[in-house]
Parts: sequence; structure tokens; C-alpha cells
Amino acid sequence: MNTPPELSRFCLHTITTKPLALPAACTAYKQVDISGITVWRDALQPLGVKASAKVLADSGLKVVSLCRGGFFPAVTAVDRRKAIDENRQVIDEAAAIGAPLIVLVCGAVPKVPLTEARKQIAEALVELAPYAADANVKLGIEPLHPMFADTRSAVNTLGQANDLAEQINSPQVGVTIDVYHVWWDDRLEAEIARAGRNKSIFSFHVCDWLSPTRDMLNDRGVMGDGCIPIRQIRAWVESAGFDGMIEVEIFSSELWQLDQMQFLHRLRTAYLEHS
Amino acid sequence: MNTPPELSRFCLHTITTKPLALPAACTAYKQVDISGITVWRDALQPLGVKASAKVLADSGLKVVSLCRGGFFPAVTAVDRRKAIDENRQVIDEAAAIGAPLIVLVCGAVPKVPLTEARKQIAEALVELAPYAADANVKLGIEPLHPMFADTRSAVNTLGQANDLAEQINSPQVGVTIDVYHVWWDDRLEAEIARAGRNKSIFSFHVCDWLSPTRDMLNDRGVMGDGCIPIRQIRAWVESAGFDGMIEVEIFSSELWQLDQMQFLHRLRTAYLEHS
Repeated sequence: MNTPPELSRFCLHTITTKPLALPAACTAYKQVDISGITVWRDALQPLGVKASAKVLADSGLKVVSLCRGGFFPAVTAVDRRKAIDENRQVIDEAAAIGAPLIVLVCGAVPKVPLTEARKQIAEALVELAPYAADANVKLGIEPLHPMFADTRSAVNTLGQANDLAEQINSPQVGVTIDVYHVWWDDRLEAEIARAGRNKSIFSFHVCDWLSPTRDMLNDRGVMGDGCIPIRQIRAWVESAGFDGMIEVEIFSSELWQLDQMQFLHRLRTAYLEHS
Repeated sequence: MNTPPELSRFCLHTITTKPLALPAACTAYKQVDISGITVWRDALQPLGVKASAKVLADSGLKVVSLCRGGFFPAVTAVDRRKAIDENRQVIDEAAAIGAPLIVLVCGAVPKVPLTEARKQIAEALVELAPYAADANVKLGIEPLHPMFADTRSAVNTLGQANDLAEQINSPQVGVTIDVYHVWWDDRLEAEIARAGRNKSIFSFHVCDWLSPTRDMLNDRGVMGDGCIPIRQIRAWVESAGFDGMIEVEIFSSELWQLDQMQFLHRLRTAYLEHS
């Protein structure tokens, strides 16, 4: 449990270094021995998908996933249809940039009861799974912290994500485990083992929970600066058979203010010491 | 499920009208037909426990519970002992003011792993249960929202609270269900039923979840202003056999700024229409 992870598994989410445009991010990541990149859709905007795909192909970084699809529930059928169409486009983008996986933030709307939202999410996944299969892209259901159950996701525990993946029952659909969202759950170890048995752990995200957390969305911490037992959770994930990338995904208004190259060196150290 | 609750079950937490001292709160609550009061310990400070007990006895309000005991986990054994001693005092205070129940916010400390914190909580409860029985005071384990797992409680779901109550296995120890903390949980209905079978639903708190929630601690909403299906959850609690008070507990920096008498009239309407 105390073994530092290999640098060959070190992946960064572009959102973590939000001030850097995609080409600058790719160059900077290589300088601190990052091996993989998870691309947020906003990072594809300035150059467009095609030119961004070339930047990524030329970077020497492994494209790990595209963030993010989802946001399926809506009050009207028209809006639910729009969301599914939008997700077809996300799948196309993932295929275009060579990302084998899309992370799904499944969505929630205050006016839609959670039980109904969960049905709408399942219906959307049933419809999208074959399209994703045709594109050779997988879909990772990421359970989001319960504090996001009003507007971001009606899937709030790994148990629920496992239930949903089992219900869809497609090799295309699995789970993404982010320590920030699930660290508090007393059933986490058991649910990680279950996802492992299902061979459905598609990706693994790390960061830390700061005390106090001053903002619900943009105050995540660097690994080691908070209270999440990241290495323990990694051990559970690896015992369950996962040997993929360890993806650092941090949203932080404070960290985005820093010199991003210095920040990257700090992340490299934190990755080795606390992930 | 659409029946408004009786005013005879309308209870308010003193923290909801934090600007009012205890005597003023008692007078004001009666004016809007509130039947019960849950007293926060800070409300006992100005007059002391004995004089506060007399104010409460003279008020005509039913004392429903004392908030709050708990905060058991600590890094050192000395601090854990202090916490247990403090809770004996809370039990004495509850007995002194005629409160049949203490709500427990069980505690968490960033430096104590959650698994260890949970053991420490169980140990403290085993020790305190006989003392509470002697005082004829019950202890309600309140699962707190997972966003409070770092510093407020390592008990974050009703399932966990039920596990803990079953483990302690004392008629003195049960659960307190606050919709704010548990509304997101896909297992809520089943866990409420389980608590009902155990005859361990000791109290029920309501408020609402605002979107956006601007502050993790002090931005709770009035019933009807957010997305919690309060009446649905009340129906589950009542189906499970609970017929006690419906306690309105709201922490809100914004609502504390209002004229508290006007705020109380608003709460009366919201209680009838949305609880």
C-alpha cells in the first residue's frame, strides 16, 4: 500500500491547469514526466477538434479520456433528446481525438425527482451504448459526491453506479472512480471489489479534500493536502484488478492562480508521495 | 402523502431563529402555533441551565430534544475521554431541561481515518448508553451529509446510523433523520423502513436544499424553496411508524438577517404547505 505509483501511470486532466491552452499544456506536461492526458471539452474549443487531435497525436502523451458527457435528465422530452444528441457528438469527438473513454457526469435537475432522473439516465445509456460501441469508445459512469445531487448528478455512490452499469449490461458501460466523490462511503471497498469483479473499473481520478472546503465546486486540494486516504483507495482499486492511469483532476480557483509550471512540479511530487 | 401536517407536531430548533434569546423565542414560537422546541446548547448559556429550564417549563412548549452531543473521535485518548465527559454533561443538561432526547453529531477529525473514527464513535456510545438510561434520556444518531465527513461526522448515511444503532443494541440509542443530510440517498426508503422495524426513529428534521447552495454550513432553505421531496420522505417515516414532532431546523446566514417574527410566520406557512 505504500508503494509510490509509476510515472508511466501519471495522467493529468487539462482542467487542472485550466490557464494553459492545449498545446502549452501538452508541452508542459511532458516536462514533468506526465504520461497521459484527459482532455476536457473546453480545451478543444480554441483550435477545434481536428487540429486539437493533431496536437495530441504529436504530443507523445497518451489520451486517456474525454471529459465529459452526460447531463441526461431534463424536465421535457425535447431537452432529454437534445442531451442524447449532444452525447453522440461527444462520442464522435472522443473517437476523433483517440480517447478510448468518455467520463459521464450523469446530470440532475432540481425540478426532476432523483428517482425519475435515475430512470432518465438509464434510458439514455441504453440508447447510447451501441453508438459508443460503433465508435469504439467506452462510457464511464462517475458517481458524484452527494453535495452535487441537485444539479450535477443523480448518481451519488459507487453502489449506484455499479447498479446502473449492471442494469445496462454492456461491455461499453462501466464506472469511473474519483476519490473526491466517494472517499466518505463506508461501502467503498466492497463496491470497488464488485466493480472489479464486473471488470468495469474504467478509470481512476485523484485529488484531495481540504478542511475547510471553502467552495463546493472549485476548492479541491492537491494530493496530500487533505484527508482522503488516496493510497488506501488506490490499493483497493488495484486489488480489484485496475492497472490503468492515475488521473489527477483538481478544480481550484486558488491553484489556477499559480504559475502553472511551478504547480506542475508540485503535482509531480504530490503524485509520487501521496497517490 | 399530500396531507398537511398537524400544528400539534410543529417543532422549531432554537438555532433556526438564532437572533432570539430563549425567553423571546418561547414567546414568539407560541404566537405562530409552534408546539415543540428543540433547544441548542448555546441557547442555554445566557441564563444558565436551571433558569432556562424554568423558562421552558413555563412556556407551554414541549421540549423535544437537546442539540447536540457527540464529536467523539479525536487523535488522542485524552481528548476522546474529554469528549465522553462532555457528553455526560450534555445528558445532565437534557435531563435538567426535560428533554427526552439528545441529537448526536458524532464527530470526525481530518487526521483520524473514517474507519477508526467510526470505531471510536461506537466505543463512546457503548460507554454512554447506560448513563443516558439512568437519566432517562435517549440518544439519536444523526447521519450527517457526506460533505461533513471531514470535520463533523463519520456517520454519513442512514444505513450507517442503523448499523451503529444495531451494534450498540440499546433501547436508549436510535437515529435522528434530517432530510437535509439524507435526501440524495437511493437507499433512503429502505433504511427508513429498517429503522422503523427497529423502533429506533427517535426524531425527524426538515428544511430544504437550495440550488445553488452558496455555503456548505449556513445556507439551508425554508421548506418548499429547494429540491428535497420533504413530504415524500415524511410519508416514508410515518409508514415506518413515526408519529412524533416534525422539527424545523434551518441554519441560514441570510434568514438570520430577517425580522424573526415575520420569518416565523413564513415558517408556519411553509410547514403547512411543504412539510
